[in-house]
Amino acid sequence: MIRPTSLSLLLAATLALSAAPVLMPAAHAATTQHAADAAPVLVTLDEWKAMTAQGKSAPLFAKEQAKAAKELDKQIKRGIDVPVPKDPGGGYTHEQHKRNYQAIEAAGTLYRLTGDMRYAEYARDMLLQYAKLYPTLGPHPAGRSEVPGRLFWQTLNDSVWVVHAIAGYDAIRDTLSAADRKSIDDNVFRAMARFMSDESADNFNKIHNHATWAVAAVGMSGYVLRDETLVNKALKGTKQDGNAGFLKQIDQLFSPDGYYEEGPYYQRYALAPFILFADAIARNEPQRKIFQYRDGVLLKAVDTLVQTSYGGYFFPLNDAILDKGVDTEELVAGIDIAYAQTGDARLLAVAQQQKRVLLSPEGLAVAQALQEKKAKPFAFHPTLLRDGGDGTQGAMAILRMNGDDGQTLVMKNTTQGMGHGHFDKLNWIFYDNGQRVVTDYGAARFLNVEAKQGGIYLPENKSWAKQTVAHNTLVVDETSHFDGDWKIGEQRPPKQLLFATSDDTQVSAARMEGAYPGVSFTRTMALVSHPELSEPVVIDLLRVHGDKPARYDLPLHYAGHVMQVGFKAERALAERPVLGKDNGYQHLWVDAVSQPASEQRTLEWLLDGRFYTYRFAGSAPSRAILAESGANDPDFNLRREPVLIQRMDGQKDATFFGVLEPHGEYNGTAEYVRGANSRIDKLERVRGSDADVIVLTIAGGKTLALAVADDPDKADVEHHVSGNGYDYRWRGGWARFDAKSGAASGAAQQAKTP
Amino acid sequence: MIRPTSLSLLLAATLALSAAPVLMPAAHAATTQHAADAAPVLVTLDEWKAMTAQGKSAPLFAKEQAKAAKELDKQIKRGIDVPVPKDPGGGYTHEQHKRNYQAIEAAGTLYRLTGDMRYAEYARDMLLQYAKLYPTLGPHPAGRSEVPGRLFWQTLNDSVWVVHAIAGYDAIRDTLSAADRKSIDDNVFRAMARFMSDESADNFNKIHNHATWAVAAVGMSGYVLRDETLVNKALKGTKQDGNAGFLKQIDQLFSPDGYYEEGPYYQRYALAPFILFADAIARNEPQRKIFQYRDGVLLKAVDTLVQTSYGGYFFPLNDAILDKGVDTEELVAGIDIAYAQTGDARLLAVAQQQKRVLLSPEGLAVAQALQEKKAKPFAFHPTLLRDGGDGTQGAMAILRMNGDDGQTLVMKNTTQGMGHGHFDKLNWIFYDNGQRVVTDYGAARFLNVEAKQGGIYLPENKSWAKQTVAHNTLVVDETSHFDGDWKIGEQRPPKQLLFATSDDTQVSAARMEGAYPGVSFTRTMALVSHPELSEPVVIDLLRVHGDKPARYDLPLHYAGHVMQVGFKAERALAERPVLGKDNGYQHLWVDAVSQPASEQRTLEWLLDGRFYTYRFAGSAPSRAILAESGANDPDFNLRREPVLIQRMDGQKDATFFGVLEPHGEYNGTAEYVRGANSRIDKLERVRGSDADVIVLTIAGGKTLALAVADDPDKADVEHHVSGNGYDYRWRGGWARFDAKSGAASGAAQQAKTP
Repeated sequence: MIRPTSLSLLLAATLALSAAPVLMPAAHAATTQHAADAAPVLVTLDEWKAMTAQGKSAPLFAKEQAKAAKELDKQIKRGIDVPVPKDPGGGYTHEQHKRNYQAIEAAGTLYRLTGDMRYAEYARDMLLQYAKLYPTLGPHPAGRSEVPGRLFWQTLNDSVWVVHAIAGYDAIRDTLSAADRKSIDDNVFRAMARFMSDESADNFNKIHNHATWAVAAVGMSGYVLRDETLVNKALKGTKQDGNAGFLKQIDQLFSPDGYYEEGPYYQRYALAPFILFADAIARNEPQRKIFQYRDGVLLKAVDTLVQTSYGGYFFPLNDAILDKGVDTEELVAGIDIAYAQTGDARLLAVAQQQKRVLLSPEGLAVAQALQEKKAKPFAFHPTLLRDGGDGTQGAMAILRMNGDDGQTLVMKNTTQGMGHGHFDKLNWIFYDNGQRVVTDYGAARFLNVEAKQGGIYLPENKSWAKQTVAHNTLVVDETSHFDGDWKIGEQRPPKQLLFATSDDTQVSAARMEGAYPGVSFTRTMALVSHPELSEPVVIDLLRVHGDKPARYDLPLHYAGHVMQVGFKAERALAERPVLGKDNGYQHLWVDAVSQPASEQRTLEWLLDGRFYTYRFAGSAPSRAILAESGANDPDFNLRREPVLIQRMDGQKDATFFGVLEPHGEYNGTAEYVRGANSRIDKLERVRGSDADVIVLTIAGGKTLALAVADDPDKADVEHHVSGNGYDYRWRGGWARFDAKSGAASGAAQQAKTP
Repeated sequence: MIRPTSLSLLLAATLALSAAPVLMPAAHAATTQHAADAAPVLVTLDEWKAMTAQGKSAPLFAKEQAKAAKELDKQIKRGIDVPVPKDPGGGYTHEQHKRNYQAIEAAGTLYRLTGDMRYAEYARDMLLQYAKLYPTLGPHPAGRSEVPGRLFWQTLNDSVWVVHAIAGYDAIRDTLSAADRKSIDDNVFRAMARFMSDESADNFNKIHNHATWAVAAVGMSGYVLRDETLVNKALKGTKQDGNAGFLKQIDQLFSPDGYYEEGPYYQRYALAPFILFADAIARNEPQRKIFQYRDGVLLKAVDTLVQTSYGGYFFPLNDAILDKGVDTEELVAGIDIAYAQTGDARLLAVAQQQKRVLLSPEGLAVAQALQEKKAKPFAFHPTLLRDGGDGTQGAMAILRMNGDDGQTLVMKNTTQGMGHGHFDKLNWIFYDNGQRVVTDYGAARFLNVEAKQGGIYLPENKSWAKQTVAHNTLVVDETSHFDGDWKIGEQRPPKQLLFATSDDTQVSAARMEGAYPGVSFTRTMALVSHPELSEPVVIDLLRVHGDKPARYDLPLHYAGHVMQVGFKAERALAERPVLGKDNGYQHLWVDAVSQPASEQRTLEWLLDGRFYTYRFAGSAPSRAILAESGANDPDFNLRREPVLIQRMDGQKDATFFGVLEPHGEYNGTAEYVRGANSRIDKLERVRGSDADVIVLTIAGGKTLALAVADDPDKADVEHHVSGNGYDYRWRGGWARFDAKSGAASGAAQQAKTP
C-alpha cells in the first residue's frame, strides 16, 4: 500500500504553511519524497530532471512553458471551479470541465518543471473536488446518443478528460498524502476507468476512435494506478481476450499505409489516444515494441496524416471541419512522439509549422533539434494510401505536382468510413495556388458553438453534407450512394485499379460497383503537365454502365467567382427555384439551366488571382445546371457555395469527360491580367472498342492525348483506338501521346508513357 | 537646337557596331557624351551617379533593380512588339502597350544604373517604332466614352503611357543621334502632348484626376523637351491663365486635410501624377516650392491616403476595387517622394509594408533608411478628414481603437465624389480583428478582365453598387439619394456636426439634408470601450425628419456566417423572391422577413473566429429583412453578400438605434469557443425634448449611456433627459454616463465626458 515517508509529510506540512511559493529543484523534490509506487510513470523522474535542466535553452520549449505558466497562473487566480455537469457541448459546464483537465495536466507538468508546490497543490485541490463530485454523478443531464458521459454529454469527452488529467495526476501523485491519493485514485480515476470499461463495455470494445480514447484513458490510468488489469483490459478488451482493445484497434483501424478509414479529420482526432497511449506503453512495457507493432503502422499513420493535408489544412473529406490543420494539438503530439521514435528530420519541418511542442521529453527533443536547425523539408509527394485493415478496401490517391502550394488532386476511392463517412465514392477535390479549387463541403457543423445546437453535427450534415450530390461524383436518379445507408457502404468498397506517376503525368483509376443497383462506374483522373500550358491540368474520364435508363448527374463543386459561362442557359433571375426534393437536392438553389446538348461547354471562374476553365462534355446530350447550396436551410446553417451539374437523362451507358485548366493571373495591386483565356482549344473523346482516348488540342495546335483502357488494371492488353483523324496504339491500362499537331499521320502515334 | 558633340556620335557608332553589351560607368557616359539640352532632367546626372554608387548597399533598392533587370531582360528576349491599337482594356494590344511603357521606363533606368547600352538601344528602338506608328493613328477603334485615346481606348491610358515613357526617354535621350532624337521628340512626345492638351482641351482643362494624368504627361514632356510652353500649359491650363491646370487641380481636388473627394481608391490613382509631376517641378523649378504649395497639401494627401486604409487595404468607398492597398505602385511613389521631402520616419513603416521602392533617388533614400532601421510605427489614429477645397463639404470621420488591427469605424459624411461617387450619404463601415465586418460593396468591376466587359465598370455598378440600398444608410421609399443624380449630389454635401475623442469614447455626428425632398437625417455614431466588454462596441443613432409618411429602410451589410437570428421571421426556404423592382432592390434575394414590431432584435454572426451581435430597434414598429445580393444578375457579375434591412413604414419622424458588439472567440484549431454570447443584456432609448440617450445594460447590471443632443454641434446647450427610471443631465452635444446599475438614483447621473 501507499506509504509516504515521514519526511515527505513533514515537507508537505511545511509547504502548506508557507504562503509564498516555495521553489525547490524539482528532481530533488521528486526523488527524495515518495515511495516508488507513487513516482511518475508516464514521464520518468530522470526525464523530468532533464527537461528542467535543458528546457530553458530550447526556445520553443521555453516559450511553451512560459505560455502554459501564464495561462495556468490566470486560472489559479480565478480559483477552482468544478461545476455539477449540466450543459451540452459549448455550454458553460462543458467548457469548464475542459479547462479543468487542461489545468490539471498543466499544473502537474509545471510543478515538475519548476518545483513550485503551488501547482501541485492546485492540481490536488481540484482533483479532490472531482473526488467528491464524481461519485455523485449519474448519466449527464444533456446526455447525447447511446453513450452519455458523466462529466460531459458524451463518454468520449469523459475519456479525453482522463487522458489529459491522468498525465497531470501522474506528475503530482507522489506529493500527496496517503488519504488524498487514495481518494483521487479511487473516486476519480478508478471510478472513471470502471465507468468507461466494464460499465460501458459496448463502447469500450468497439473498433472505433471513441473506444480508442476510452482504452487510452483506462490503460494510462492502469499504469499510473499500478493496476495491471486495467492495462490488460485496455490492450485486449474488457474480456482481456484480444478480440477488442488497443491492439485490435491498431490491427483494424489503420490500413497497412497508415490510413484511417474515417479520413484525415478523424485520423487526426483518433491519432492522439493511439500515440499518447503507445507512448505510455513504450515507457512502461518497452518489451511490447508498440511502435514497431504491425510494421510500425502508428508511425506511418503520423506521416500519412501530414500527407493528407494541403496548405496546412487536412483534406476535408467525410465529416470534417475545414479549419483543422497540421497545427492541431493532436498532431503536435503525433509529430513530437514520432520524431522521438524515428529521428526523421522531415517531421521537424511540420513541427516548425506547428510552432508548438509538447512539454514532454519528446517535445524537448523536437525543440532542441529545431534550435540546432536540423529540419528538412517534409516533401509532399504523389502517393496511394490503401484503405482497410488489409489494404484492399479501396484507396485514397493523391496526385501532386509543383510542391507544397502547387497542384494536388485527391481522388477519394476509399471505403465508406463508418458513421462519419460521406456517400462520395470516386469523389475528387483539387487544390492549386494554395487554394481549394474543386471543393468538398466537409461537415455541416460549428464545433462547440452553443447557438448551433451545441456544436454537434447539424441536421444539414445528413441532409446535405453527406449526400452524394454535395460531392464531385456520380449521382443516379437523384439518390445517394447506397441509398444513404453507411452500413451497406461499409460492405462495398471501391476498387483502386491503377496508380502511376511519371514526370509529366500522374494517373489514378478506380471502379465502384454496388453504389446503385445495377450500376457500375469507372473513373480515371490524371494530372498532366505540358510545356505549352502554364500549369498542369486535370483530365477526368468517368464511364458508367447501368442496366436501365436513368438520370445521371455529375456535380462539380468549385470555389471562385464566375467569369464566363461558356454556354447558353436560362438564368433564374427574379425567382430562384429549388433543384429537387430530397437527398441534398432540396438544398440547391438553381441559378441557370441549359438545354440538353452534346457539344463541349466551358465554365470559367476566378479564384485568388488565378483563372480556372473547366471544359466538359459527355457521350450523350446533357444539360448544364448552375446552382448554389443554401435552400431549405431554416437556421442559416449552410455555407452558400456554387456547383455546376452535368445532367444526362435516359441513358444506360454513359461517359462524362472533362479537363480543368488553371491559367493566367489577375493582379489587383499591380493592375494587370495575364493569360485570362484558356489555352485549350478543343476537348475530344475518341472511342475504341475497349478504350477511350481524351484528346486536348492546345493553342498553337499541339495535342496531348490520354488513352485509358476500359479495364485500366490490365497491364498487358494491346489497344488500338482510331477516329476523328487520330490513330492510337498502346499496351496496358493507359498511355499518353504528345503530338505537334492534331492532324494525324497514317501511322499510329507513339505513346510517350507506358 | 540639338547638337550632339562629334565625340558622342563617334561613340554611338562604336557602340552600335559592338554586338556584346558594352559596360561603361553610367555617370561618365552621361557627362561626356552630350549637349546639356539632352541631359536628363527628371533625375539629374549627379543623382544617377549616386544611385549607381550606393544602390548595391541598400538591399531593397538592389532587389528592386535586380527584379527590374530580370523582367526587362525577358522582354528584350521576346523582341519589340508595338502593335496597331485595337483591343479594349484587358485585350492584347492594350496590355502590350502597357508592358511597353513599363519597359521604356525600366530600360532608361537600367541604362543609367548599369551603363549597359543594350538597355538604351532597346528603349530607343521601341520609341522609334512608336515614332513611326503614332502619327498614323486616329481615334482608338474601341474608343470609349467622350475621350477616346490613340494608343488606348481612353485618353487617360495614353497619359499614363507618357508619364512613364517620358521618364525612360529622359534617361536615354542624350545617347541618341540627332535624327532619332528629333523623330522621337516630335512624333511621339510632342505629338502626344499636343493631342492631350490642345487637341483634347476639354479633358485637359478639367478639374479631375484624368486631367491630372494629362497635365503631368504634358508638363513632364515639357521639361524633357525643354519646352516652356508645355510646362506652362500643364501648370495653368491650355490658355495658360491659371483657370485650369495642375495648380488649380491642387487647389480644388484636395481638401485642406489632403482628402480627395472621389475617395481613397481614386485618391491613390490620382496621387501618382500629382506626386510625380510635383517631383519633376521640384527638380526643375525648385523656386516654385511645389511641395509647400497650399500648406503642403500634396504631402498631407500621402499621409491621408495611408490613414484611409485598414489591414493594408484602402477603405473601399465609392467606386473602388477591394484588393487595392498600400502596396500599390502609386503609393510606393507617394511614400518615397514624401519621405524625401519630409524625412518622416513613420512613412518608412509603410515602405516596409510595401516591400518596394522606386528606382529613383527617393527610393534609394528610403531603402537606405530602412537598412539603417530608422522606421517608426505609422500610428493610425482617430481623425476627421474634411472634404471639399475649402474643407466645408462634409468629412470622413475615422474612429479607431486598439491599433492597426483593432476597431476602425469609418463614417462617410463626405460629398458625392463626382461620377465615381456612391449614393451613400452618412454611410458607415466597420473593421475589427483585421476583417471587414460591416462592409461596403465597392465597385462592380473586374479590373482588366476582358471577359467582364474588358474590365470596365459593369452595368451592376450602376444598378447595384452605387445605389443607396447597397450601403449602410437611410433609404427613403426605395429610391436612392438625389434620385441617383450625382450632379445634384455634388451640390448638397452632408454637414459634419461633431467629432470628439477621449480614451474610451469616440463620437462623430453628421446631418444630411436634400438627399430626399423634405427629408433630413442626422446620424451619430460612437466607438465606446467599457471594462466589462471584451472589445469596444459601436453605437448608432439615426434620426429622420420627413414632411410626409414614407418607407424608411436602414440596411446593414455585414460579413460572416449567421449564428443566431434573434427574432421570428418567415423564411424563404423553397423559393426565393426578389425584394424590389429598381434602385438596387431588384438585386436582393429575400431570405427572411419578420412581422413589424417595436421590440429590440438581434442578429449574431461569426467572422474569422470572432462573434458579432448587432442589437437594434426603432421608434416605431419595423420589419427586419434578411437578404442577399445576386438577383437579376444575368452574367454573374455580383458577389453574393448578406444584408439585414430594418424597414419602418408610414412614419414621418423616426429614430433607428443599434449597437454592434464584437465578442468572444471561435478557435477551430484548438477546438474551443469563448464568449459566444453577447454581454449586452438590453438596449434602450430614452427620449427627451431635445436629445436622446442610448442606454446599454451590460451583463452584471452596469450601464453605459450615450447622450446625444438633437443638434450635436451646439456645445453650450444644457440638456435633461429622464424616463425608464433614468435621469441624465449634461451640457453640450453629447455625453457619456457610466453607472454601476441601471436602477437610476433620484439624482441625475454624472456625465463622464466630455
